[in-house]
Amino acid sequence: MKTCIDCIPCFFRQALEAARLASNDEGVAAEVLRKVASMVTDLDMSQSPPAMGQKIHRIVRETVGIDDPYRQIKKTFNEAALRLYPEMRRLIGTSERPLETAVRLAIAGNIIDFGVNGGVRESDVERAIGECLAAELGADVLSRFEAAVRDADEILYLADNAGEIVFDRLLIEVLPVDKVMVAVKGSAIINDATMEDAVVAGLPRIVEVIDNGDDAPGTLAEGCSEEFRERFGRADLIIAKGQGNFETLSEAEKHIFFILRAKCPVVAKRFGCAPGTSILLEHGAIRDKTEN
Amino acid sequence: MKTCIDCIPCFFRQALEAARLASNDEGVAAEVLRKVASMVTDLDMSQSPPAMGQKIHRIVRETVGIDDPYRQIKKTFNEAALRLYPEMRRLIGTSERPLETAVRLAIAGNIIDFGVNGGVRESDVERAIGECLAAELGADVLSRFEAAVRDADEILYLADNAGEIVFDRLLIEVLPVDKVMVAVKGSAIINDATMEDAVVAGLPRIVEVIDNGDDAPGTLAEGCSEEFRERFGRADLIIAKGQGNFETLSEAEKHIFFILRAKCPVVAKRFGCAPGTSILLEHGAIRDKTEN
Repeated sequence: MKTCIDCIPCFFRQALEAARLASNDEGVAAEVLRKVASMVTDLDMSQSPPAMGQKIHRIVRETVGIDDPYRQIKKTFNEAALRLYPEMRRLIGTSERPLETAVRLAIAGNIIDFGVNGGVRESDVERAIGECLAAELGADVLSRFEAAVRDADEILYLADNAGEIVFDRLLIEVLPVDKVMVAVKGSAIINDATMEDAVVAGLPRIVEVIDNGDDAPGTLAEGCSEEFRERFGRADLIIAKGQGNFETLSEAEKHIFFILRAKCPVVAKRFGCAPGTSILLEHGAIRDKTEN
Repeated sequence: MKTCIDCIPCFFRQALEAARLASNDEGVAAEVLRKVASMVTDLDMSQSPPAMGQKIHRIVRETVGIDDPYRQIKKTFNEAALRLYPEMRRLIGTSERPLETAVRLAIAGNIIDFGVNGGVRESDVERAIGECLAAELGADVLSRFEAAVRDADEILYLADNAGEIVFDRLLIEVLPVDKVMVAVKGSAIINDATMEDAVVAGLPRIVEVIDNGDDAPGTLAEGCSEEFRERFGRADLIIAKGQGNFETLSEAEKHIFFILRAKCPVVAKRFGCAPGTSILLEHGAIRDKTEN
């Protein structure tokens, strides 16, 4: 997905929120915005928004001199999600359609996205759970998802944010875990989950977890490690969480289920829906194994 | 009032709205945003936001090749305000405190500001009238305003936007019109009122109207005509409408009453109020005439 001109004011909003989070010095924040402006003067609009997001947040970290401005936010939301975990697990356990309930909760967790909204509160997460349990998802795509999970040999699950990764665990627990590998980000980018968050969520105890070697808020193959690219190429089913993975993989030639909450107006417009809509989208054709 | 870093994302939002209004070509809008970014790379934060607004809208007009992107919007809101005029005049005529009611309506008209919000609708104006008639204004400042109007020898009324200028007429009609001169903008800038709008509002029939010779969305002395500067200097009372005039004149050594709706978060914060609050603010000391 290419960058849209509507993304440009949003880049500055995001840079300002990140700079203020990282530093109390308004002069430093102004310096960050000037550097972002300098980048925008010759912006390549054919890149995806997360490619720009990666550069913006590198500028923030370098200008302020902090390696992870979102560390405390990630900790806060991991803990909040872990408090919600037992009740959500019970919901799935008593559900007539556990996979569907788990997908809905995984979508709810996607509200914890400090790239799109620097003011997410714990009460927003609780409200999102209620909304996503009631949202329209489509029985067709749910049954295709169920079939795809059953038929796949290797499933690569691309996690999105900290806190949200606890919600991902709930979905992963109802998948055939032996076939699943989870990938997190290689290093700090916004509040995206890294290996530290996967560990806090307890994921490595139930499934293989790798990091993708990159600090883009999405999946940009060129920045990822050789190991990640190899696993990505080999997987016959990708489960991609969040807007950033959608924006970076919407043209990928893979069989992908995108699971997200369409939060910003640009992404929502792409789906033809209102911001806040729950999305489970199948992308790409299922490879006919008899042809290989 | 200096530019705040929160203004920077807003500059891009405003540039995008203006570019889209002026052209259907997204490439042209992208070009506008790149030029604005280039300006921001060495932005002088000691300037007021309207100084930057002036540059942004010059870029929009020059890049698109249109001298007045807001012409239709100004026409629409002049007409809407003129439709509301008879009923509002009746309200003032039957009011126990006609000056106060006229001030409240003048504040309501300030919602028609396409710099702060490119999506103002006529229904917003009607809602603003109700809000402003009920708003907290402070009896003290109202009686100081009444006294200042009575005691002044020359009153300069700085108009803000088209449409709103019809609301200004209602206030001007309850002022001692022989002492009042109205100033509009010298040429097109956002939806600010120019001489054309003053004529549509019927102002020149009841009061002297000049233009300030400039295209800033506020009052920047250095860009204004000699005549305007002379009249500004001579007036012993300035009535300044809108955020732009507040942002550019908040340090002026004049006796000013600012009349506005605090619309953006930065201006609202300066007043210590929530966005949407009605403001009648006295600024500067009354010159003791016995000392001259």
